[in-house]
Formats: sequence, structure tokens, C-alpha cells
Amino acid sequence: MEADEFRQRGREMVDYIADYLENINQRRPFPEVSPGYLKHLIPDEAPSSGESWDSVKADIERVIMPGVTHWHSPHFHAYYPTGNSYPAILGDMLSDAIGCIGFSWASSPACTELEVSVMDWLGKMLQLPKEFLFSEEGKGGGIIQGTASEATLVALLSARTTIINKQRAENPNMTQGQIIDKLVAYTSEQSHSSVERAALIGMVTIRTLPTDDKGSLVGDTLQAAISTDIEKGLIPFFLCATVGTTSLCSFDKISELGPICNKYGVWMHVDAAYAGSACICPEFRYLLDGVEHSMSFNFNPHKWLMVNFDCSAMWVKDRTLVSGAFEMDPLYLKHEHQGQIMPDYRHWQIPLGRRFRSLKVWFVLRMFGISGLQQQIRKDVLLAKQFGQLVADDSRFEIVGEVTLGLVCFRLKGPNSANETLNKKINDDRRIHLVPSKVKDTYFLRFAVCARGTQMSDVTFAWSVIREITDKMALIPTGQ
Amino acid sequence: MEADEFRQRGREMVDYIADYLENINQRRPFPEVSPGYLKHLIPDEAPSSGESWDSVKADIERVIMPGVTHWHSPHFHAYYPTGNSYPAILGDMLSDAIGCIGFSWASSPACTELEVSVMDWLGKMLQLPKEFLFSEEGKGGGIIQGTASEATLVALLSARTTIINKQRAENPNMTQGQIIDKLVAYTSEQSHSSVERAALIGMVTIRTLPTDDKGSLVGDTLQAAISTDIEKGLIPFFLCATVGTTSLCSFDKISELGPICNKYGVWMHVDAAYAGSACICPEFRYLLDGVEHSMSFNFNPHKWLMVNFDCSAMWVKDRTLVSGAFEMDPLYLKHEHQGQIMPDYRHWQIPLGRRFRSLKVWFVLRMFGISGLQQQIRKDVLLAKQFGQLVADDSRFEIVGEVTLGLVCFRLKGPNSANETLNKKINDDRRIHLVPSKVKDTYFLRFAVCARGTQMSDVTFAWSVIREITDKMALIPTGQ
Repeated sequence: MEADEFRQRGREMVDYIADYLENINQRRPFPEVSPGYLKHLIPDEAPSSGESWDSVKADIERVIMPGVTHWHSPHFHAYYPTGNSYPAILGDMLSDAIGCIGFSWASSPACTELEVSVMDWLGKMLQLPKEFLFSEEGKGGGIIQGTASEATLVALLSARTTIINKQRAENPNMTQGQIIDKLVAYTSEQSHSSVERAALIGMVTIRTLPTDDKGSLVGDTLQAAISTDIEKGLIPFFLCATVGTTSLCSFDKISELGPICNKYGVWMHVDAAYAGSACICPEFRYLLDGVEHSMSFNFNPHKWLMVNFDCSAMWVKDRTLVSGAFEMDPLYLKHEHQGQIMPDYRHWQIPLGRRFRSLKVWFVLRMFGISGLQQQIRKDVLLAKQFGQLVADDSRFEIVGEVTLGLVCFRLKGPNSANETLNKKINDDRRIHLVPSKVKDTYFLRFAVCARGTQMSDVTFAWSVIREITDKMALIPTGQ
Repeated sequence: MEADEFRQRGREMVDYIADYLENINQRRPFPEVSPGYLKHLIPDEAPSSGESWDSVKADIERVIMPGVTHWHSPHFHAYYPTGNSYPAILGDMLSDAIGCIGFSWASSPACTELEVSVMDWLGKMLQLPKEFLFSEEGKGGGIIQGTASEATLVALLSARTTIINKQRAENPNMTQGQIIDKLVAYTSEQSHSSVERAALIGMVTIRTLPTDDKGSLVGDTLQAAISTDIEKGLIPFFLCATVGTTSLCSFDKISELGPICNKYGVWMHVDAAYAGSACICPEFRYLLDGVEHSMSFNFNPHKWLMVNFDCSAMWVKDRTLVSGAFEMDPLYLKHEHQGQIMPDYRHWQIPLGRRFRSLKVWFVLRMFGISGLQQQIRKDVLLAKQFGQLVADDSRFEIVGEVTLGLVCFRLKGPNSANETLNKKINDDRRIHLVPSKVKDTYFLRFAVCARGTQMSDVTFAWSVIREITDKMALIPTGQ
């Protein structure tokens, strides 16, 4: 396919995308296929000669769409939202065309420099402390990581290198292994599984601390854990606190946790993957109070800021502590402007290569403007509150936790088993899609407002489906 | 921006992309900007209200393009190629529109299942041993990682978990730190910097072993290193061998290294990031002889198989050893078909989330066909050989290493300083772009055939630029 044909096929794809997203509510959000469905629909081997575009295009509906979970359906309420918008798609198209690998400033200056600028834009939108921004004197700055999992891992590894260097300076005879055996990281029992995974990769002990009755990690709990570990001769070095947990959208008390971390030289990383986007609205900014005590912070514009996956925005107060953990500098990657003014982002992340992801962020911020993005957040929070009210008005149900942003956790009053049945029936029914969770042995359902186009009518539709299924469940004699 | 406007703006972007790539040879491959150029061209903050598409679009040429390194210019000969093709761009557009996060089978079955199928397609194209494929009985399978750095890290961490589990079973009183202090990984002094970085992250000792006069790691060297380490009471556990190194495109002797690794229970990972693509041509498949001894293998379709970044194809012989290193399973990610037939790829990689990257691979394989991809590889190798001949015919120059695939390493006979000057003058001249490297204290220039559209006329143009600059250098009296 050369340029002339692409002009035609590109237009067809643009129309296909617009048709898909405009009419997505006509598709069931969760597919009706069984594992292994796809291999029977395509050959076992790649074709030896090229096929026509028409045959490939026809297979989108024949092979792909039957197996797609439609995250942008207004009837999709599972997990958390993932961003999608036309400006972001346009930005990604341009990124693909330029197709540069932005590992160093020289490998494509615009790729690094636009990222520096949009990270400062985003940081200002969140009213982050100035120490996190590039634009101020100091060592701070931001980077687009792929995912929150990577941001957490980079933070943990940076903290690990920092503490190991400090320990070895004080105790030159200690081996790395002896230090590693003493390091302790902390997080809450509500934090994302990727935090435990980061500790597994970093090969350090992690304690998943209990939360209060709202699902929040509080200062006293951390203080007690740190004191106990120090008494045992261990070395506390890292805390991953969460602003907006996955199960409950609960909020760790970072304004309590931060001063404790600073007192003990513990690196506090704040993961606000989902909730961070809401903090561009002044009325939700309080959720980040205390972030000034953290060494690093991330949130995912690819969740709730209409930017397509992947885009996790991460800031650090001292970028030398991050690059110090990763720096490798062979000649074929050196360039004459190295280290001057602009960062070489390869030293800030796990992969070496990187896409020109700031383009999609730039397009989204400019075409929606801050007010357009705030409007989207506020609409979703309002819909969640309205769904919460529908639940509260039905005496068979109870709300689990609090409805602060776009997530409502709810359950049938009574045993977990009834809720497990309800969850299965809702998802088997396939008109809407959601996922369950469990906190302190209480099983519940999660209703997240996900798609950009979700409206009140979709929320009432979802509730009518849930009520209808619940009504039918009540007709089944117990014991069957 | 809603669907109607996207239909219009999407067409404009498609035309912009076609225009950009069709006329890219009219742009200088390396930009003439200094660090910090971009921030003066855009505001310090995101706009409060949305801007028009026209203002955003105009800024592509005003703000972005002046700072782009044009990797797809036929005058770009730096690093190694990165893939770009119209079918891949169309596949990525569709991936963005679907915008699913494919961390588990249930989160979008098509995303997992197409990846399973295209990984088997690619594996068959490379004639990989059957143990690596999903389609056979056994524990093998493939995954699309973002980059070769991540594939190497995943391999190293999987090997680390495997050996630690084995050691702890034999010595239950040993701590993780005590084991870590004894682990030794190996690679060659020519392997990519990301291998050392993986060891740094994995917190294990790594030995960068010397290569022979062709830049290859040979069996005797590895055997000697393993024997010495075992005598010291250390535990050899991992080798990253390279097929097509970055500096020289040299080839480790994996058919010698593999049996040694198997004898000592060392996990051999083979990184063929660049050269792997060539192995779809029967005449180059010999480069992978010995891969049957490896536990894991990767190459980057995003380098030389016309797939846009990011796409590193990785296969493992025993996927339980990979998922065993990473598995975390909270309820909100569980689904009823878990572990049945289809993999949950989140257990195979560093990030949790993942894009629908198999679409672009599928589009490329189908629209070019195997023969179309082979044709591209063969064209590039031929161009490199022809460039090598031009160098060899000029008595002032010498070839460094061998021209096996699409890379020619060359230098002016004489001191490194003359070559450093030549490199700087070529890049300051800006008509072509390349990067230098250094092996065993010999500094040289690397000429890689990169862009899909590079033709013989571009190669002779590049050589004429190099000759012209060399001629001028000869006119400058020595000592100045």
C-alpha cells in the first residue's frame, strides 16, 4: 500500500471509527465468545502474498468485533474508564506517521520537548507543588510513563537505589543482598495489585497495611508499622499511597502519611491513577492535599482525561534520583546536547524506546480546554451520584464505601453468595457489564461511569437491568 | 469534537500523513534546533477553553516539525530502522478506536486471541522450534512486549524467580538476599545497554564477557566464566545472547552457547531485536541456528518488519516460569474463563495494561504477505552491500566488522580523532544523519539502511556527501 491507496483507505478507516463510536450503544458491551473462538476464523499461517484491503477490512466485523469488550459503550461499567476521544486519535495518527523513537533529546527533540511542556501544563492544572515542575528552578520534572504499574515500579526502584547508596556509604562492607533483606516497603491492603508486583520485581519485603472503615490508610497505622520494623532492625524505605483505590475509590490520608515518611526518610509515592484527573476541578483538588510531602506522584490521563491508552503522567521532585537508578550511556546513544536543559527520558523509565505520546495529550488539552475536561469529570461524578441515589432508594441494596467520584460500590443486603449470583446474572444477561470486588470479606459490585458518552438515560437503563434481574432472583425459592 | 467533525479532520490528517511521508526526502533528516526551542513557541499553560482544529493543525508545521528527527527519511542512517507502513498506521487507528485495555482475556477476548494467533504466525515465519508456539502441545507461547528492553527484563526476572525457587527448595534457610548475592548473569560486551540495565533492576551481578575479533561471544569464553564463578561458590543463572548487536550487527554463537547453558541450568535468552526480522528469509535463517537451546527469544517487528513502534515479539518455552514470576490476581481482574486455553497476558509483562497491538501486526502481515516483507529485507541488505562496496573502493576508508544485513560500519583509516571529526562534520552538514560507535577502542561510523523507501540513489547520495566532507577535511592542514 502506497500513499495514494492510503489516502483512500485512511478515509474509510476514519469513517469506520466514527461509525463504530457513534453507534456503539447498539453493540452488547461484553462479547458472547468462548476462549479459542478466533483461531477458527483465520488461517494458521500468514499469507505468502499480500491480500487486498477489502478482505482485511471485512474481517474487522467478521473476526475482531465479535470478540471485543466495548469499553466505550455507555453500558460498560467495569473496572475504571479508559480514555478515548477524537483529538487523541488524531494525535496518535500523527505520532505513528512521524514514527520517531524518542529515547534521547537528539533522537527527536520535539518528542522530548513537547512532553516537557505538556507535563508542566498538566502539573499546573493539578496545582502540583512547584518542585515537581520543570519550569521552576530545581530538580523536579514530569514524564509520560505507559501505565501506573510502571510509574510505581520506577518510583520503588528509584527509592531502592537511593537507600542502598545511603546504606553502603554508611556501611561499606554490607552486600546488596544484606541490605535488600532489610528493606521494607509499605502500601495499603486496598492498593492496586501492581504495587505488590513492583515489590516482587524489586525483591523487597512489602507490608500491605490495614485500612480504616472507609478503606483509607491512616498515619497511626503507618507509624506503628515503621516503628515495629525499625525495632526489628529493618529499614523502611518506600510507601505507595493511593488516591482513589481500585476496589472502592477510597483515599489514603496522604497529609498524615507524608510527614511520617519524611521523618523516617521513607520515599512516599502517590498513585492517583484514576482520581487524579478529577483534581483539575477546584472542588476535588482537596483529594491531593498532602502530595507536597511525596517524592513522586502519578495519575493516568488515559483513564479519565480523554487521552487514549497509554499515558500515565508521573512527576518526581528529584529527577537525579530516578535517572541515577537507570542510567546507561553507550556511545551510540550519546549526543552533543546531552544533559543540557532537556532530559533524556530513557533514563527515567523501564523501556529504552518511547512513542511520541505527548502529541495526543497536547491535542486533547487544546481542543477540549481545561473547562471542557472539567465538564466531563463533573458530568461523570453527577451520574455516579444519581446512580448512588437510585441504589439508596431501593431498600434491598446498600452502598459500600462512599460515592466521591465516578464509582458506586453497592450490594444486596445479606450474604455474599446472593451478590455473587447477581453479578453472574448481570454479566450473563450482557446488556450491561460490570465487575465485582471484595473488601474485608464483603463481596460487592462496582458500577463505574466509564464511556465519554454515558448519559443519565444509560444510568437509569443500567439500574433497570439490575432491578429486573434482582426481581427475578427473588422469585427463585431459596436453596435452589 | 464529535463524529461529524472527526470525519472531516480525520481525512485532513490522513492527507497530512500521506503528504508527509511522500515528500519526506525534502526535509533534512536531523533538525536544526537547540535544546529548549519548543517552549518559546507555545503558551506556558493549557488553554482554559477549547481551541479550533485549524489552530492545532497549523502548529504541527510551526511547532513540531522543526524539531523532528525524521526517522523515515531516506537520508536517515542512524541507530537501526524503526518500522512504519500504511497498513500498520491503519491497524493502530483501529486499535485506538476500540481502545480496550487487554490485561486479561475477558477485558477484550479479541485482543488476547489475535495476539496468540499472530505470534504463532510470526513464529512459523521464523521457523522457531515448535516448543515456542501456542499451537503445539506444551507450555510455549508468544507475547507482544513493548520493547526489547522489556523482553530482556522479563526473561531475566523469570530466570531469577526460577533459580531462587530452586535454591530455596534446596536450602530453606537461605534468605533472598543471600541468594541474590550469589547470582551471576552473563552477556557480551557488545550487547545492548538494556541488558546491563535489566541486571541493575534485577539486582544481580552481570559479567560483560569479551567477544572474538568479529564481535561474537563464543562458547569457550562463556564456559570459562561459568567455571570460574562456580569455583567461587557463585550461581550462574542467566545469559542474554545477541543475534545482531547494536554497534556492529555481530552475532553471538548461540549454537555453542546454548548447550553450555543447558548443561549448567542457565536460562539462555536470545535477543535478535534487529536481525530477527531478516530470518523470515530462508537465506538468513541460519543466523538463528541454536535458538532451540534458548528458554526465551525476542525480535522487534517494529524495527525491520514494517510494524510501527512499539512491538517486540517474545516467545518462551515455558510460560508458567514467566507468569510465576509476576502473577497477582485480585478479584476485580478475575474472570470465569481464567487460565482456560487462552493466556492472561498481564502475567507475562511489566505493565498491567496493554494496547491492541496485534492489529497492526495482522494488517502488515496480511497486506504485504511474507513475500512482500522478504522483498523489503532483501532490498535493504542489497543496499548495505552496495554501500559497503563504495566504502571498500575508496582507499581512505576501511570496513569495521562484516556487512551481513543492513548495517555498514566504516571508518577513515587512521586515528579515532579523524573519525570523530568526520562524524561531527557529517551531522553538522545535516544532509544525512548517522551515529558513531566504538568497539575495542576503535571509533567508527555506522551506516544503517533505515527508511522503507530508501533506494540506491539515496545510498549513492549519502556516499557522495561523506566523500565530499572527507575531501574537504583533507584540505585542512593537520593540527588545526
